[in-house]
Amino acid sequence: METIKAAVLEKSNGKICVKIRSFPEPVLEPGAVLLKTLYSEVCGTDVHLMQGQLAGVPYPIIPGHINVGVIEKINGTVFDIEGNSFRAGDVVTFLDVHETCHTCWHCLVAKASTRCPQRKVYGVTYSANEGLLGGWSQKIYLKPGVKIIKLPPGISPEDFIAGGCGAPTALHAVERAGIKLNDFVVVQGSGPVGLNAAIFALLSGAGSVAVVDPATRRLAAARAIGVDHAIDAAAAKDRIAEIRRLTNQRGADITIEASGNPKAVVEGLKMTRDNGTYVIVGQYTDAGDVAINPHLDINKKHIDIRGVWGIDYSHIYKSVHLMAKHGERFRWRDMISKTYPLEKVTDALDAVKSLEVVKAVIAPNATAKEENSR
Amino acid sequence: METIKAAVLEKSNGKICVKIRSFPEPVLEPGAVLLKTLYSEVCGTDVHLMQGQLAGVPYPIIPGHINVGVIEKINGTVFDIEGNSFRAGDVVTFLDVHETCHTCWHCLVAKASTRCPQRKVYGVTYSANEGLLGGWSQKIYLKPGVKIIKLPPGISPEDFIAGGCGAPTALHAVERAGIKLNDFVVVQGSGPVGLNAAIFALLSGAGSVAVVDPATRRLAAARAIGVDHAIDAAAAKDRIAEIRRLTNQRGADITIEASGNPKAVVEGLKMTRDNGTYVIVGQYTDAGDVAINPHLDINKKHIDIRGVWGIDYSHIYKSVHLMAKHGERFRWRDMISKTYPLEKVTDALDAVKSLEVVKAVIAPNATAKEENSR
Amino acid sequence: METIKAAVLEKSNGKICVKIRSFPEPVLEPGAVLLKTLYSEVCGTDVHLMQGQLAGVPYPIIPGHINVGVIEKINGTVFDIEGNSFRAGDVVTFLDVHETCHTCWHCLVAKASTRCPQRKVYGVTYSANEGLLGGWSQKIYLKPGVKIIKLPPGISPEDFIAGGCGAPTALHAVERAGIKLNDFVVVQGSGPVGLNAAIFALLSGAGSVAVVDPATRRLAAARAIGVDHAIDAAAAKDRIAEIRRLTNQRGADITIEASGNPKAVVEGLKMTRDNGTYVIVGQYTDAGDVAINPHLDINKKHIDIRGVWGIDYSHIYKSVHLMAKHGERFRWRDMISKTYPLEKVTDALDAVKSLEVVKAVIAPNATAKEENSR
Amino acid sequence: METIKAAVLEKSNGKICVKIRSFPEPVLEPGAVLLKTLYSEVCGTDVHLMQGQLAGVPYPIIPGHINVGVIEKINGTVFDIEGNSFRAGDVVTFLDVHETCHTCWHCLVAKASTRCPQRKVYGVTYSANEGLLGGWSQKIYLKPGVKIIKLPPGISPEDFIAGGCGAPTALHAVERAGIKLNDFVVVQGSGPVGLNAAIFALLSGAGSVAVVDPATRRLAAARAIGVDHAIDAAAAKDRIAEIRRLTNQRGADITIEASGNPKAVVEGLKMTRDNGTYVIVGQYTDAGDVAINPHLDINKKHIDIRGVWGIDYSHIYKSVHLMAKHGERFRWRDMISKTYPLEKVTDALDAVKSLEVVKAVIAPNATAKEENSR
Repeated sequence: METIKAAVLEKSNGKICVKIRSFPEPVLEPGAVLLKTLYSEVCGTDVHLMQGQLAGVPYPIIPGHINVGVIEKINGTVFDIEGNSFRAGDVVTFLDVHETCHTCWHCLVAKASTRCPQRKVYGVTYSANEGLLGGWSQKIYLKPGVKIIKLPPGISPEDFIAGGCGAPTALHAVERAGIKLNDFVVVQGSGPVGLNAAIFALLSGAGSVAVVDPATRRLAAARAIGVDHAIDAAAAKDRIAEIRRLTNQRGADITIEASGNPKAVVEGLKMTRDNGTYVIVGQYTDAGDVAINPHLDINKKHIDIRGVWGIDYSHIYKSVHLMAKHGERFRWRDMISKTYPLEKVTDALDAVKSLEVVKAVIAPNATAKEENSR
Repeated sequence: METIKAAVLEKSNGKICVKIRSFPEPVLEPGAVLLKTLYSEVCGTDVHLMQGQLAGVPYPIIPGHINVGVIEKINGTVFDIEGNSFRAGDVVTFLDVHETCHTCWHCLVAKASTRCPQRKVYGVTYSANEGLLGGWSQKIYLKPGVKIIKLPPGISPEDFIAGGCGAPTALHAVERAGIKLNDFVVVQGSGPVGLNAAIFALLSGAGSVAVVDPATRRLAAARAIGVDHAIDAAAAKDRIAEIRRLTNQRGADITIEASGNPKAVVEGLKMTRDNGTYVIVGQYTDAGDVAINPHLDINKKHIDIRGVWGIDYSHIYKSVHLMAKHGERFRWRDMISKTYPLEKVTDALDAVKSLEVVKAVIAPNATAKEENSR
Repeated sequence: METIKAAVLEKSNGKICVKIRSFPEPVLEPGAVLLKTLYSEVCGTDVHLMQGQLAGVPYPIIPGHINVGVIEKINGTVFDIEGNSFRAGDVVTFLDVHETCHTCWHCLVAKASTRCPQRKVYGVTYSANEGLLGGWSQKIYLKPGVKIIKLPPGISPEDFIAGGCGAPTALHAVERAGIKLNDFVVVQGSGPVGLNAAIFALLSGAGSVAVVDPATRRLAAARAIGVDHAIDAAAAKDRIAEIRRLTNQRGADITIEASGNPKAVVEGLKMTRDNGTYVIVGQYTDAGDVAINPHLDINKKHIDIRGVWGIDYSHIYKSVHLMAKHGERFRWRDMISKTYPLEKVTDALDAVKSLEVVKAVIAPNATAKEENSR
Repeated sequence: METIKAAVLEKSNGKICVKIRSFPEPVLEPGAVLLKTLYSEVCGTDVHLMQGQLAGVPYPIIPGHINVGVIEKINGTVFDIEGNSFRAGDVVTFLDVHETCHTCWHCLVAKASTRCPQRKVYGVTYSANEGLLGGWSQKIYLKPGVKIIKLPPGISPEDFIAGGCGAPTALHAVERAGIKLNDFVVVQGSGPVGLNAAIFALLSGAGSVAVVDPATRRLAAARAIGVDHAIDAAAAKDRIAEIRRLTNQRGADITIEASGNPKAVVEGLKMTRDNGTYVIVGQYTDAGDVAINPHLDINKKHIDIRGVWGIDYSHIYKSVHLMAKHGERFRWRDMISKTYPLEKVTDALDAVKSLEVVKAVIAPNATAKEENSR
C-alpha cells in the first residue's frame, strides 16, 4: 500500500516544529474525494501557526488551507453547485471552511456564517490525527460535503495558488468596502492580501488605487498589476501627507488595511476622508493594542470602520471566476516568488515571515530540489 | 429703542468668561425673522465652549444652538419646507446649521453635508459681533434662509427643549445604527444624547434596550422612559459581563456610545456581538486616546463601527415630529432638571459639567429667580 | 396501537377534495420529534391548494404549514439554536421550510435561501404518503433537523396561531421595506399578512400607518391594533386621493401590498411618493396580469419595487419574540374569528375564501363541535 | 454688436418647428459665465421635445442640455467645487440641472434632489425668452451658480459630447444597480444610455456584460467597447432564452433597461434571476402601458426593481473623470456617427429618431457644411 508524505506541525515541550510524516492511503467514505495535491500555499496564518499564535489549534496539524489538486478518486457521485458532477482528473480547489452548521444563531439569525462557532478550517483547525486535512501533503482527503470548484478555463493551477487565500479574503474585504465608481482607494500593505485587494479595487472601477508598503519588492509587484500610485514614503507622516496631496487634502474615499501591523490602523484612519470607509482585513493575529482617538479619528470624521473575518463559499467562487476572466491582465502566476518541496517548508515559512517573498508556494509532489525561483 | 440682553462667552487674557451684554434691536434683512426666545439649552458642547476645547470658535459668542421661540417679526414672507408661510406668534425652532454651501465636494460628490467646510452653527461658530446668533439671548436673529420649523400639535416648547440637541443627534445616530426589529441595543451613557438614543431605539422596534451609566439620577431617567435594562454595574468588567449575560453570551446586536468618555469605546466594542454594529456619537470633544486591539476588537469581530457627526435638516424635522407623536409615552419635559434665567447660566454650565442634572434649560426672558427645579 | 386523524387534500378525477384519514403512529428516526398539534391555521395558500392553483404540489397532502403543538416524543436529544434541549411537554412551533440545501448557487452565491430549489414546505410540498407532514393532523412528525422554537413567555398558543404565517411573512416584507423612523407607511389589505405588516410597521417607528381595505370587519381589526388611518374609500381613485391628502400630496414613503389583488399593484404605485419604496408580498398566486406604465409609475417616480417570497428561520424566530414582547399591545389572539375541528376544515376554507373571517384556526384535537366563534 | 445664432424649437398653431434665430450678446450678471459652444448633442429627449411629448416645456426653447464649450467671459471670479477658479479659454461642461432649491421636502428630508420640483434644466425647461439657456446656440449663458466642470486631461471635447447625457444617466443607473464583482449584467438597448451603461458595468467588475438590441449598427458599437455578448436574437422569446442559456438558466443578476420601449420591461423582468435587480432608466417619455404579472414577475421572483430619474452633480463629475481615465479603452469619440451644423438640426433629429445613428452631435460654430460623418 502506498504511503503519503505530509509536513506536520507538532508541539513538543511547548515548542512547535515541522516534521515530515507518512500516512496511509485513506479509505473514502461515500461522497468523499481524494485529491493529489498540485500546490498548497504558505500564508501569514501559517507563520502564526508555526509560532503558536492562534488559539484552539489541535496540534499536530497538516497546514495548507488553500490548495489546488487533481481528483484521484471519488466515492460515488459528487456535484458542484451548478449540478455538474466531478471526474477523476479534474483540476479543482475547495473551500477550506467546512462544517458551517446552518443551525446556530449566527448562521440562522445573524446570517454571519463566518462567525459560526462550528466551522472548521482545513489546514488550521483539523488535527493530523483526523486525516489528510491540510494541503502540505501529497494527497488531501475531501470529506463528504466539502465544497469543490473545478478551475474554469483561463486560470492555471499556478495562477490560482498565487492568488491563494489572499484572493478570496481580499474579495470579501472589497465587498465590505463598497467601492463605487471613481473612488480613491488606498491599500495599506502589498503582500498577498493587499495585492489582491488592489486588483479587486481596480476591477471595481476605482478612480485611483494607491498601495502603501515599505518593501521595494512588494511595491514592484503592485506596480506590475497597474496600481495608480505605489507609495514607499519612509515615515507614517509622509505617507499620510502623500495620500492627502493626491486627494486634494481630503483623504481617500476608502482605505483597506492589509498590512497586519496594528500601527497601520492609526495611519489608515488619518489617510481616509471624512465620511469615508476604512476596512480592516489584515489583522489576523493579535499583535497588540494601538492608541486611537475616538473624537478625531472616528466621531468627528463620521467614518465607517469595518472588520472582515474569514470567507464563505461565495468569495472563493467569485474570486476563481474573476481570476479566470482577468488572468492576462493581472498575471497572478507572476506573484509566485518561489516554489518549495515538502522538505523545504521551513525555508518557505522563513521567507514569508521575513517578507522577502511576495508569494511562497508548496508543491508537495515535486522532487526535493527547488523549482521556479524568480 | 429696546435693548436685548444676551449671555456672551468672551475671551480675555486667554480665559473664557460669561458676561451679560445688551444689544440693540436688529434691523431685519428681507427674508429674516426675529424670534423672542422661549428656551435655549445647555449641552455638553456649551461646557466645551466655556473651557475653550473647540477649535475655530470666534469668541465672543452667544451660546445656545438649539432653541425654541415665538416669531416676533418677519421681513417679507417666509415659508417652511412644505410651502406654509410663517406668522408672528408662531412657536418655532430652527436648524442651528446654516450656510451649508451645496457647492463643495463634500456637499455635491460625497453627499456628506455635515462635513461641509462652509457650514456655520448658531451658538457655536457665529460671533456675537455678527449679531444675535445664539439662543442665550432674549431674541434671536434668523438670517434669510435659516430653516424654521413650527412646532406641530402635541409637542410643547418644554418637550422640545428637553429633547434639545440630544434628540436630533440621537436620531442621526440611530439612523446610522440601522436597528432592525428585535435587535438587542445597548446605549452607553444616559445623558441627553443617550436617553434620546434609547427612546429612538425603542421606537425602532428593538427587542431590548439596555442603558449603561454610573449616575443614579440618569439611570432613573432611563427607567422612566421604559428601557428594558438600566445597568449601573460598578466596573467596566461587570458591565460587559452583564450585557453578555443578557444576550446569551453573544453581546449586543448594536451598541451606541453616548457617554463622551473615550474608555467607553473600549468597553462598548467588547459589549457588541461578532458582526454587530458600534455607533460612536458621544465623542464630541478631544478627551484623549484609548488603546484598541485591532485584531480582537475589530478584525476578528467582523464589526461595523460608525462615527456620527452633526445633524442636517432631516434629523431635526423628524425628531420634532416623532416627539409630537410620542410625547405622552416618553414625556421629554420631565427630563428638565432645572430652568435657569440668563443671569444664572454659569450655574447651569456647572450643573451640566458635574452631570448633576439630566437637562438644564435657559429661559432668557424669565425673571432672575429660578423656576422649575425638579 | 393508536391511530391519528388528519385532514387530507386529495385529487380524484382532476378535482381536489378533503378527506379525513387515519394514520398509524410514526416511528421516530434519531433526531425526530413528534408533536401533538394544538393549532394549525387556514391561510390563503390553503385556499389555493384546495383550488389546485399552486404548481408542483404532490397531492394527497396534509395542509397546515404553520402550527403550534406540544412535544410528545423525542428520539434522542434535540437542541434549539441557542443550544437548549427540548423536552416532552414543551409548547413549540417550527419553521415550515425544511431541506434548504446550503449547497446550491442560490444558497451559497446569491445567499437567497428562499429561492433554493431544494427547499420543501410542511403542509405544501410534502405528500401525505411521506408521513404526518402538515398541521391539519392530530400529530405532526418533525423530521431530524426541522428547526423548532419553544414559545417564549408572553406568547400563548392562541397568539402564535393567530399571527400564523402572516406574522413571519409580514416581518420579511417589513425588513425588505426598510422603514425608517417617521416614515408614512400604507398597507394595502387588512387580512392576516396586512395586519401583521401594519403591526411591524408601527413597531418600526413609522410616523403614520394607513391600512386600506374594502372589508369592514378587517378594517375594524386594523383599528383595534392602533393604525393611524383605516381607509375604506369606495373606489381606487378615492383611496389614492386620500393617501395623497394625508401626505401633503406626496404619497407614502413606503407602501406594502398585502391584498393579493393584482389591481392593487397599479393603485399602490400611485399611492407611493417619488423615490419611495413599494413592497409586493401579497401576490402569492397567479391572479393574472395588470397594466403598468413604466414611464409614469417606475422610471419618472424613481421608485424602488421589491418582491418578497417566502421566509427563512430568522423571520419566524424574530416574529415569535416580537409577539411575546408586544402581546398585550397588539393582542394577536383577538384576530381569531373562529376555531374549527378537523371535520370542519371545509367550512374554514370557505370562510377564508369569502374573506368573512380575519383568521380561521384548526384545532385538530378538539371535539367535533365548534369552539371559540367570535 | 455681435449677434449669436441659435436653433429654437417654437410652437405655432399647435405644431413644433425649428427656426434659426439671432440673439444679442448677453450682459453678464456677477458670477455669470459666457461659453462659446464647441458641441451640443441630440438625444432622445430632444426628439420628444420636437414631438411635444414632454409636459411643462416653455416653448420657444433652445434645446441642447449637455454641452461643451470654451469660456469666453466671466463676470468676477467663479470657482469649481475644488476651489479652483476658471479662466477664459478653459474647455468646460456644466450640470444642465440648475436651481435645485435645497429648501424643499424632497431636497431636505427625502434627499432625493432629482425629484425637487424647483429644478430647471438647460435646454429643456428654460425658455428662449429667458436667454441663451440651451446648447444649440453659438454661445451659452451660464447663470451664477451653474456648476461648471473643466474637462480634465485625457478627455477631448469629442469624447465628452459622445458620452453626452447618456454617460451621467447611465452612471446613475449603474449606481442604483449596485453591481458587484462577477455579476452577470444585461443591458437592454444599445443607444447612448445603453452603451454607457455597458461601459460602466464593465468598469464595475461585472463578470459578463450582455447587450441586447435589434439594430446591427448599435450592436457593432457594443462589440467595439468590449461587451461579452452582443445579442441580436430576432424575437423576445429567443432573447430571453439566450440570456438564460448564458446564465445556467438562472437569468442575469442585474438587468438595466435602456431601450425606451415599454415591452422591454416585460422581457427584462424575465431575463433577470430570482432575487436579482432590474433597473429602469430608458423610459423617459410616456410610451404607454404594458401587462405585468405581479405574482410571476415580481413577488415570486423576490426581485428588486429600481426606477432612475435625472442626474445630480455627482453623476456628471464622476462620469467626466471616468471618461478621462478610460478614454483609450472605450474611445467614446468613436460613437459619434455624424456632426451637424446648426442649420441641419432637423436632419440630426430625424437621424436620432430613426435610430440610424449611434450619436448625433451639433457643432453650432461650424460652417454649414457637414463634417465628420462616419
